[in-house]
Amino acid sequence: MRAIELQDGPGLANLKLVERADPRPGPGEVLVKLHAATLNYRDLLTIEGTYGVRLRTPLIPLSDGCGVVVETGEGVGRVEIGDRVCPLFFQDWLSGSRLEQPRLTALGGPLDGVAAEYICLGEHGVSKVPSFLSDAQAAALPCAGLTAWSALFVEARAKPGDVVLLQGTGGVSIFGLQLAKAAGCTVIITSSSDEKLEHATALGADHTINYVRTPEWGSAARKLTDGRGIDHVLEVGGKETLAESFRALRSGRHVSLIGLLSGRAEGSIGLGTNVRSIYVGNRFDFEEMCRGMETNRIEPVVDQSFKLGEIPDALRFMKEGRHFGKIAIAIGD
Amino acid sequence: MRAIELQDGPGLANLKLVERADPRPGPGEVLVKLHAATLNYRDLLTIEGTYGVRLRTPLIPLSDGCGVVVETGEGVGRVEIGDRVCPLFFQDWLSGSRLEQPRLTALGGPLDGVAAEYICLGEHGVSKVPSFLSDAQAAALPCAGLTAWSALFVEARAKPGDVVLLQGTGGVSIFGLQLAKAAGCTVIITSSSDEKLEHATALGADHTINYVRTPEWGSAARKLTDGRGIDHVLEVGGKETLAESFRALRSGRHVSLIGLLSGRAEGSIGLGTNVRSIYVGNRFDFEEMCRGMETNRIEPVVDQSFKLGEIPDALRFMKEGRHFGKIAIAIGD
Amino acid sequence: MRAIELQDGPGLANLKLVERADPRPGPGEVLVKLHAATLNYRDLLTIEGTYGVRLRTPLIPLSDGCGVVVETGEGVGRVEIGDRVCPLFFQDWLSGSRLEQPRLTALGGPLDGVAAEYICLGEHGVSKVPSFLSDAQAAALPCAGLTAWSALFVEARAKPGDVVLLQGTGGVSIFGLQLAKAAGCTVIITSSSDEKLEHATALGADHTINYVRTPEWGSAARKLTDGRGIDHVLEVGGKETLAESFRALRSGRHVSLIGLLSGRAEGSIGLGTNVRSIYVGNRFDFEEMCRGMETNRIEPVVDQSFKLGEIPDALRFMKEGRHFGKIAIAIGD
Amino acid sequence: MRAIELQDGPGLANLKLVERADPRPGPGEVLVKLHAATLNYRDLLTIEGTYGVRLRTPLIPLSDGCGVVVETGEGVGRVEIGDRVCPLFFQDWLSGSRLEQPRLTALGGPLDGVAAEYICLGEHGVSKVPSFLSDAQAAALPCAGLTAWSALFVEARAKPGDVVLLQGTGGVSIFGLQLAKAAGCTVIITSSSDEKLEHATALGADHTINYVRTPEWGSAARKLTDGRGIDHVLEVGGKETLAESFRALRSGRHVSLIGLLSGRAEGSIGLGTNVRSIYVGNRFDFEEMCRGMETNRIEPVVDQSFKLGEIPDALRFMKEGRHFGKIAIAIGD
Repeated sequence: MRAIELQDGPGLANLKLVERADPRPGPGEVLVKLHAATLNYRDLLTIEGTYGVRLRTPLIPLSDGCGVVVETGEGVGRVEIGDRVCPLFFQDWLSGSRLEQPRLTALGGPLDGVAAEYICLGEHGVSKVPSFLSDAQAAALPCAGLTAWSALFVEARAKPGDVVLLQGTGGVSIFGLQLAKAAGCTVIITSSSDEKLEHATALGADHTINYVRTPEWGSAARKLTDGRGIDHVLEVGGKETLAESFRALRSGRHVSLIGLLSGRAEGSIGLGTNVRSIYVGNRFDFEEMCRGMETNRIEPVVDQSFKLGEIPDALRFMKEGRHFGKIAIAIGD
Repeated sequence: MRAIELQDGPGLANLKLVERADPRPGPGEVLVKLHAATLNYRDLLTIEGTYGVRLRTPLIPLSDGCGVVVETGEGVGRVEIGDRVCPLFFQDWLSGSRLEQPRLTALGGPLDGVAAEYICLGEHGVSKVPSFLSDAQAAALPCAGLTAWSALFVEARAKPGDVVLLQGTGGVSIFGLQLAKAAGCTVIITSSSDEKLEHATALGADHTINYVRTPEWGSAARKLTDGRGIDHVLEVGGKETLAESFRALRSGRHVSLIGLLSGRAEGSIGLGTNVRSIYVGNRFDFEEMCRGMETNRIEPVVDQSFKLGEIPDALRFMKEGRHFGKIAIAIGD
Repeated sequence: MRAIELQDGPGLANLKLVERADPRPGPGEVLVKLHAATLNYRDLLTIEGTYGVRLRTPLIPLSDGCGVVVETGEGVGRVEIGDRVCPLFFQDWLSGSRLEQPRLTALGGPLDGVAAEYICLGEHGVSKVPSFLSDAQAAALPCAGLTAWSALFVEARAKPGDVVLLQGTGGVSIFGLQLAKAAGCTVIITSSSDEKLEHATALGADHTINYVRTPEWGSAARKLTDGRGIDHVLEVGGKETLAESFRALRSGRHVSLIGLLSGRAEGSIGLGTNVRSIYVGNRFDFEEMCRGMETNRIEPVVDQSFKLGEIPDALRFMKEGRHFGKIAIAIGD
Repeated sequence: MRAIELQDGPGLANLKLVERADPRPGPGEVLVKLHAATLNYRDLLTIEGTYGVRLRTPLIPLSDGCGVVVETGEGVGRVEIGDRVCPLFFQDWLSGSRLEQPRLTALGGPLDGVAAEYICLGEHGVSKVPSFLSDAQAAALPCAGLTAWSALFVEARAKPGDVVLLQGTGGVSIFGLQLAKAAGCTVIITSSSDEKLEHATALGADHTINYVRTPEWGSAARKLTDGRGIDHVLEVGGKETLAESFRALRSGRHVSLIGLLSGRAEGSIGLGTNVRSIYVGNRFDFEEMCRGMETNRIEPVVDQSFKLGEIPDALRFMKEGRHFGKIAIAIGD
């Protein structure tokens, strides 16, 4: 099979298109022929060696993909040949809270990921996906989709009328927008680009803030709630954003910290700090999310698509921040 | 002022239209000129003396109303003259769980209710209501609306994709339908009338079951979920319904018991029983509900409207079960 | 190996001591040499065919045991040879709520249980146990111990000063007594035997009620709380007990229904019913419980001990209700 | 009556012993003759003008006291003359979460506090206290006691076997020690003084760490849990402590931030940050705490006692950090 490997050490220049032996499923395993992948900011950090976890090379990067089961090992009963599935970001987090888990490991580092034509996984590490989604759309679910879902519905338990504040128009934020609207929430979203804010409005955002023109966007967001404050902030930004997030937050509510996905959020902890870290999520919630997306016919927003061999270009495109929603990789023929 | 009084003892025949002295607000109190009321099944049980709480007469019945603040006592700051408000069902349940409350008392029995031109209440016992609602629509919120809201979003924490099972087309169930749809849920609703089921479909119900033609509606509802079971059952029915509700319920989920509103639910407790009683709700949640309804432009469904002096007719109309949603009382000129 | 088998059909008379081939661990499996088992009421119901689940014979009964790992299959890393472990009641419920689980199956029916000299299990299906416990004491943990733990600390979240009501002096109730006292709660316990009540007092019970002399023990228990009501009722009884449990319960609190263990609880659901079913629990909570018992040096109370071949006698002893705490089976030399 | 007033502006030098007219209870109010008060670090910050809330003078400082109801206004039913009560820190936070509250105000700033012979309060703003406590002990409950209680049992829901990490031997930490031990937890406590650590051990602490000798006390605490990490950290320290607290914390658990009481905690938010702010607590939980303390006969630890006129000396004593537990003020004859 063809695969992208990170070789020798960190850096986009060390990504090579290679031939590898096709994997074969052992007992309890399934072989998935991958059709699509999508990028997360975590992938870029991993490849550049700044993610904070020791890099093991050679590594097949990327955690989010979608494909079809083409072979099953002995004793497999959870899925069948022909099922379209996503590999789960955390292969062994099936249910329960983060507290209840032994050490978890993720696809795309330290485990080999989905930048390949095939992947072999334990049958418990894949889940079926709704048929109304394209391969690229489904490939956006495991990390970006589930992170937004976990933040809103597992941790924050958003309900109709709650106000959700989203930062920028990357994958998690756009999922947050679509999911929050499906749940009857009010959505406020920020960006540096009026064009992207218009796009967000077309997707249902109730209020938009251009943070270049309004650097005090936290206070601006609070004003939009008649001073009550924001119920749920999905903090995906970096060092500069957290102080504004706290300014926006409703008393007694939490900021959901999504540093795993798009770089480090850093800020000062002071009076009234309520922060909780979101670590993607478990398989049960992945399946609840799929049902929720199917019920509400939510289609993940996929921006430009690249080929397997163009992954370095795709990562550069993401780094430049020009995308809206997810960047896709088409795998296969 | 004119008011309806229950005199001497239980029974619709003991409801009399009387003249009473206009009440005047003491310190911390507000005088509300009532514009509309709506009926709950609890009102009928109270008047007929079968509600289970000792009847004190004379009693001004009805708990749910809407009006305008026309006078404020000393020290009132929460509302102003001219504000349109609803009296809260439990006057002193401001926040927190039922467990945290001292003994609560409700409007319309044992406290005098809203079947009158004026009511005088502590300022903490009223809340402002959204302006896009008519008086009759707003008058449906305090008991029926808040009960459905509490069941779905305070206790059950419904999220997109959850499946909600509703029994019949009375006030709580129709609120449940509208709120569940606003939250991105799938709704299954039962009725004995195909006409009412069509009406429910027009309001957004995903599946309908005529329980006369399908007496095993619990199993039928389960089938509609591919065998997974119903996430949230709002049990408003009587003795016969609970067994079917348990048949429908997803493992690990709860039946919300709403016996306060529409008569007694009775049934057997066995293996796997998860039941929780819903007691309307607190003021904080009333205000969260109003925001949720405003955000999603949910208009309570009001069936026929009666005049203050026609309350006995309105109650008989409710008893016959011919209504869909709420029955209103227009008060005033 | 020697084992007890239920042969042909239900009934104590169908329990036979047999020789079976020693099991051998496959990949990911461990072989446990069992040292002790304990009885649950569920075992009796299963054997008598009244448990409600279809009986498959031959079946090795009993779910609760303790032994030592004597052999490990390929790839086992969770435990080592020489570790003393308990098999978990639900082999595949590792974490998370009941809602999050696929269909679970239990040891001692439908899966072969621990009434044998050896058992072979997946490595994820066993957990190490504290060294200060005897084999028989540790063998009491998987079902009875974890049920009481889940009811008090996973579901009810008992805290210092809470009042816990326990019914009778069987295994779950005595665990409930010990755990509730360790958590700083007040304990009220009922029995028909003054001698058993004295024993319970010696173990720390604060109040005792002889339900033969005080058939209205629910109201009596409530009186002991100055009318506030009981915070946590562990309902292990049968048809007659539930009404009293509701009479005792504090407004807004739940009855924990433990029908799996000691027969059916049945009763009427009415106004104010809050019931939740306890299904033993998951592996994470088993391990939290072990830590809690070790920290507080809680020793499970073991009554009489029988030999492997005497299991029918042991079950009859349990049926007569003469025991206090757990009945043990010594296995091996 | 005699009272301490902060006059003109911030600073211990502006505290004056003055005569004021005795207050008299209006409708719904009670007059409390104060017997004792205790100090919180918040009092010092308020008086020195560094608390962060605008100072209004003249102000009667101190929030925590205990006294006896000596007069009741019209309509008072919650307490009677002769009842020994504590004023509640937040006069109007009766139940529910912080989120559910309108703006709250506290005794001792901005509201006049308990550094006086009498205080007049709404009847809902006082609660009865257990009789086995001395006046000074009871006076330690409203802020320090309830903060530790809320952190452990309302937010963190500590259970037997959980490991609690406490910083220093001030009021909140020593309450935390006593409450955690009553709940069956393991306690690790830090101090710069071996003498204080010995005192903590005598009160039940399981492990002690001298943070002068072990500046990496966070890692040291983690080691004491076999690497699992601390379940509940009560963060009462300043800028330097938070990084160590995160090092100690178990994955998926929260640091409880108690900055209101003992100065600002500041630190960096990064991957895995879970922080929640504790704001003392509500009246319902105050009463649950009193029951929990009575059930377990927990006596708050009171260090040196000062007279009303010696409050500046008492505050200096606290500032020097020489105390263990609470510093008391004896009021009255």
